[in-house]
Amino acid sequence: MNAVSPLTKNIAPPGLKGLIVADTEVGSVRGDEGWYHYRGHSAAALARDHSFEAVAYLLLNGTLPDRTAEEDFRAELATARRLTPEAAEMVSALAKTDLPPMSVLRSVLGVEVDPRPTLDLGSDERRAAVMRAIGITPTVLAAVNRIRSGAEPLEPEESLSHSADYLRMTLGKAPHPEHARAVETYLCLTADHGFNASTFTARVITSTGTDVAGAIGGALAALAGPLHGGAPGRVLDMLHAIGHPDNAVPWIAAELDAGQKIMGFGHAVYRAADPRSETLKAVAIELGGELVDRALDIESRILAYLAEWKPDAVIVTNVEFYAGVVLHLAGLPQEAFTPTFTTSRVVGWGAHLLEQAANNKIMRPSARYTGPLYNST
Amino acid sequence: MNAVSPLTKNIAPPGLKGLIVADTEVGSVRGDEGWYHYRGHSAAALARDHSFEAVAYLLLNGTLPDRTAEEDFRAELATARRLTPEAAEMVSALAKTDLPPMSVLRSVLGVEVDPRPTLDLGSDERRAAVMRAIGITPTVLAAVNRIRSGAEPLEPEESLSHSADYLRMTLGKAPHPEHARAVETYLCLTADHGFNASTFTARVITSTGTDVAGAIGGALAALAGPLHGGAPGRVLDMLHAIGHPDNAVPWIAAELDAGQKIMGFGHAVYRAADPRSETLKAVAIELGGELVDRALDIESRILAYLAEWKPDAVIVTNVEFYAGVVLHLAGLPQEAFTPTFTTSRVVGWGAHLLEQAANNKIMRPSARYTGPLYNST
Repeated sequence: MNAVSPLTKNIAPPGLKGLIVADTEVGSVRGDEGWYHYRGHSAAALARDHSFEAVAYLLLNGTLPDRTAEEDFRAELATARRLTPEAAEMVSALAKTDLPPMSVLRSVLGVEVDPRPTLDLGSDERRAAVMRAIGITPTVLAAVNRIRSGAEPLEPEESLSHSADYLRMTLGKAPHPEHARAVETYLCLTADHGFNASTFTARVITSTGTDVAGAIGGALAALAGPLHGGAPGRVLDMLHAIGHPDNAVPWIAAELDAGQKIMGFGHAVYRAADPRSETLKAVAIELGGELVDRALDIESRILAYLAEWKPDAVIVTNVEFYAGVVLHLAGLPQEAFTPTFTTSRVVGWGAHLLEQAANNKIMRPSARYTGPLYNST
Repeated sequence: MNAVSPLTKNIAPPGLKGLIVADTEVGSVRGDEGWYHYRGHSAAALARDHSFEAVAYLLLNGTLPDRTAEEDFRAELATARRLTPEAAEMVSALAKTDLPPMSVLRSVLGVEVDPRPTLDLGSDERRAAVMRAIGITPTVLAAVNRIRSGAEPLEPEESLSHSADYLRMTLGKAPHPEHARAVETYLCLTADHGFNASTFTARVITSTGTDVAGAIGGALAALAGPLHGGAPGRVLDMLHAIGHPDNAVPWIAAELDAGQKIMGFGHAVYRAADPRSETLKAVAIELGGELVDRALDIESRILAYLAEWKPDAVIVTNVEFYAGVVLHLAGLPQEAFTPTFTTSRVVGWGAHLLEQAANNKIMRPSARYTGPLYNST
């Protein structure tokens, strides 16, 4: 007996929803059970106990590093953060246009990452290209934000961890260790999450055998799509709009009446609590302050209201809610939220790209023509 | 009764082969019947009788243009070919690196095409962004080839057709009308061809709602992948390697013995003759010359050998064989072959992008985790 209904006539469900398009050993989301994992290790547990470097190493290599391997990897990643002078110049030029930061990164990736076809590279070269893409991501995105705030971009600092250095390059000063750790937890939690649209994109593009920058660039484009989700800034806007917790219920009632989605609640996969939200909530409580108290109060009022509004649905707090609070408390401006998410997710793309390339088959589906036919010669 | 076997357990076939992932009115490939069409009109017939502008108009708008509409479209496309000074500068700078031309175009698209999310654009704005991407593609790719051959890039010339102007910008001089028409036929034939990997990529990325340059850039990356196919230069190399037709059989026997694929023969979809190959063969015969005579002779010897080698398989001449001959006879150097293909295929991507955006659902499939599990908290 299989609970999943079979597909007939080789027609995929709308949006490919629920369709298994690949086998993977990178990780998976067990939404019904309320957890997700990287290489079989609970991601929430990893985020609490491990560095971003250890998590990235695990995703890319399959096992957790020992102390020496982690140190080597930290040094390798730190080196990969450095831009070539040509790329730094390109960032400066493009930051002065109105291009979104993600588009700037797409352009710069092309000049920094080995342009040869992925499948022509040896496994070391391929891994090096992926590391380069992972490394320059925070550097480029932080530089664009710095330049646009009227400041000089900072060069990476090799002695710092990836998360601390990203925060430093964005803020322009050494971050408070508690803030760096909060951002690191966020990065660990968001490095991978099943076959979302950007990860799928990276694999489809890689399946043609093309270059690493092309696949990562496509994934960046997909991640920038408003339907991809992951815009914790909207939750902050909501908390500001609500103001006092007493306003939460009237505010949300008016939004629902107007047919608006409530940011920070509900998820396509999780039916139990979203483990990312739970972990970030604990981080927020540790950081503390007026915003956290208010967020906790507003969250519980919204959940109670939603439970009454749709008694049959299980609506949970999603990753966006406390992500917005935590990133804000760590000192990051809202325009750095998507860059922060990208800094972590590029690791997941890299792991999936390497997996796809190691056992590749080009992804070439079909479509059904539904228009008129005029001739056949 | 349905001849296609049903999928069970929601598992897609390897490489998504044969799986219908979307409905489309752009066109389709009827491989068993040996033809393919754009909006219901035989593509081979269109290529013989119509301009590239008319074919592009048809793909983008759904109907063939009348004379006025075609003239307006020609003018619109000519305007879209012009680069901004910033983009022209970027092309010059990137052409001096070792970036592949397709990667240069990826970077330049970002600065030339409306960076706003596709789904936030009105339908006119969205169409304008697609036209811009289509327009600058030949300009950028021709400029890179010109600069790398030590010459100055040429600005587009609005009085010329898209194909003639592409050829002029690549060659550095006004093309022979017969050559321009040969290239135009090639462009018409290759503007779209079912749900290949790059077209699928454009639709997956667009499904997130992201910007037009992001979706087209991803498709460019996929097209550059060696498994995507479409490298007619390899056929020319083969014709050179074979030399005299008498060498064809020993040469191909040695290649097959060595486990090599024979370029220009066999196709995933066509069981009858590839209509693109048939049409390009007619063009080649019209252009005439020693290479054509030799290609015809070598083709028939190879087909005869392959029929004996695998009597049960239907192995046909594919689009690459005469494409290589025709593009060469039109004066294009081999490094311009993929740019030429891109100049046409970007139209198909644009049509699919517009169709996806008009009736969108995010594409987010699943994967099956096949690795170990260590914990669940």
